[in-house]
Amino acid sequence: MNVAIAGVGQTKVGEHWGLSLREMSLQAIEGALDEAGNPKVEALFVGNMLAGLGGQLHLGPLIADYVGIVPKEAVRVEATCASGGAAFRSALHFVQATGKAALVCGVEKMTDVPPREATRELVTAADAELEGVHGPSFPALNALLMRRYMHEFHCRVEDFALFPVNAHKNAMHCEWAMYHRPITAQDVCESKSISSPIRLLDCSPRSDGSASAVLVPQAQGIDTPVTVVGSAAATDTLTLAGRRDLLTLDAARESARLAYEMAHLGPGDIDVFELHDAFSIIAVLSLEAAGFAPRGGGVTLAMEGEIAPGGRIPICTFGGLKARGHPIGATGVYQIVELVKQLRGDGGGNQVPAEVGMAQSIGGVGGTAITHILARGD
Amino acid sequence: MNVAIAGVGQTKVGEHWGLSLREMSLQAIEGALDEAGNPKVEALFVGNMLAGLGGQLHLGPLIADYVGIVPKEAVRVEATCASGGAAFRSALHFVQATGKAALVCGVEKMTDVPPREATRELVTAADAELEGVHGPSFPALNALLMRRYMHEFHCRVEDFALFPVNAHKNAMHCEWAMYHRPITAQDVCESKSISSPIRLLDCSPRSDGSASAVLVPQAQGIDTPVTVVGSAAATDTLTLAGRRDLLTLDAARESARLAYEMAHLGPGDIDVFELHDAFSIIAVLSLEAAGFAPRGGGVTLAMEGEIAPGGRIPICTFGGLKARGHPIGATGVYQIVELVKQLRGDGGGNQVPAEVGMAQSIGGVGGTAITHILARGD
Repeated sequence: MNVAIAGVGQTKVGEHWGLSLREMSLQAIEGALDEAGNPKVEALFVGNMLAGLGGQLHLGPLIADYVGIVPKEAVRVEATCASGGAAFRSALHFVQATGKAALVCGVEKMTDVPPREATRELVTAADAELEGVHGPSFPALNALLMRRYMHEFHCRVEDFALFPVNAHKNAMHCEWAMYHRPITAQDVCESKSISSPIRLLDCSPRSDGSASAVLVPQAQGIDTPVTVVGSAAATDTLTLAGRRDLLTLDAARESARLAYEMAHLGPGDIDVFELHDAFSIIAVLSLEAAGFAPRGGGVTLAMEGEIAPGGRIPICTFGGLKARGHPIGATGVYQIVELVKQLRGDGGGNQVPAEVGMAQSIGGVGGTAITHILARGD
Repeated sequence: MNVAIAGVGQTKVGEHWGLSLREMSLQAIEGALDEAGNPKVEALFVGNMLAGLGGQLHLGPLIADYVGIVPKEAVRVEATCASGGAAFRSALHFVQATGKAALVCGVEKMTDVPPREATRELVTAADAELEGVHGPSFPALNALLMRRYMHEFHCRVEDFALFPVNAHKNAMHCEWAMYHRPITAQDVCESKSISSPIRLLDCSPRSDGSASAVLVPQAQGIDTPVTVVGSAAATDTLTLAGRRDLLTLDAARESARLAYEMAHLGPGDIDVFELHDAFSIIAVLSLEAAGFAPRGGGVTLAMEGEIAPGGRIPICTFGGLKARGHPIGATGVYQIVELVKQLRGDGGGNQVPAEVGMAQSIGGVGGTAITHILARGD
């Protein structure tokens, strides 16, 4: 059974001081349900990382009540930064297991977290007893990977800058992106050092937002159906010290391998790739893990212009985490929303020629990876 | 397809000052895998409520790594006090959708939470903006229900005391129970008032523990198979003020109704019921919601001795949340472990005659309810 996506919805990403978590969720879910023609949904899967740390767990019934689907079941799925992808995969299993329609909603309200606490909260994605206890921030853990990459492959900070430059350029045409501001490689290199060698403009921003999709057991009756042809998740050690190779995201590689296998496809078949560019280095390693470049070749791919629209593998076509914004638990669902728009031909100024697309949601510094392959048609 | 439970494992419930969250999980998972003959499992679903508030999210890969199943997928499911039941239901969907074996592991380490913070953390199960902001503790919200029940049905604190008395009596024979100490109704009534009319001995204790089960797509090859014949989840408003009727747990009623429907069974077919006695009042309302007594009749059922082993519907046969203990995110999985033991005839001093059993996991003050019906045989 190829589960289809009958509708998608999303809020603008940004700093939503005037909207609560449940209000953002309602906007996204109403959008998705409207597009889908308001089908009867039997379950809601919520992707969220941080709300509990701010005093609100139990988002399943909270949101189900606010959008008016009580007593339907509703549960939260958490895999830190991959929570959105994980919630989508749970919804997929629900539809496959029961033959009934389901909603997925990713939501995060990072402006509820004071900046000082955010550092402490984001590092909950790492191993608290073995890494967190030594005091690294979350960017610092990613900086270790970037430093190693620069050492091993003799590249420079400005080589990585091509990723945020591409993301900001793509976001110019995306109405729900957080930033509509082109940046240059020089801007990136001259921006504040966050955790050397990571600069401010290598980092995705703190964002609020919510995205949603309606999953149905069959494509029948949908005008331009988009179906899920591959889905897989994998894990790696949380601690970087436990890794086989610091520069291979093994979970990303494994989840991509399994998703390709399920879809009977390979990297050469993917027309658009929404990857998890939380930091420039993660974009690079994701491209390599998903088979678009050899180990050490991700940066070269960008230097050759292949990640831009019209290139061999366009990434972050609506701005990615860097410029569309990264409302953590919602991000994996934004990726799905954006793939659906590309595959339907609804991409507007961001449209790339695409019949098959891939989204990859990464949790922590690669401890979790969840890959989905979507295709136009039933 | 009737998914079967091939093995179960659990730690003793108690105050495990010397064991970390991952170490407890390992004990439970190793027990379950050993019993199941160490099958290849393809996924792990973790039920946990509070670890994130203590600084550790991302339990999926954390535990997957510690038990040695990386790169298999692993994710955390959260529905506050119903997280264990929710994780079990997610594992069930995974097995049904993929035809592969899965692990579920519920785990909670409440001794990591200082008592003063615990009050703040537990109320994250309620609606922070509409209830929490007014300052109630979690017991206080449950006390409102008990007060209303006493008013409407003219019963007394001592009538409710029969539930903790039964739980403590049953726990005497349970090696993994937190308490091995019989109590009397007088003890309950004379214990400290927590949130009037709730007394200390009406409350389940703060506990550490972990429980696990292995789910496989078929019962073939299992000596005494136990299969999942009914599974359903439902929601209610988080706010008590939003409820249709303060004394009906609508989510519990709906999830029981759907589980009965799926199993083609009714309350009369259930031989043993592991219910969510987080507070005495919730045990009463659960019995009513699941159809074992009419509205207002739950207390009477206890007074007539029908909840004890040998009664019409034995509950909390290994001590329940009250006396086995309530390691929150693990509790829903402990209920499954205990049902499996009853249905296999492995109940030891706690054995009741049983071919069909039901477990019900409740989140918050009934915002989530998840019901499973298990049966002996394939």
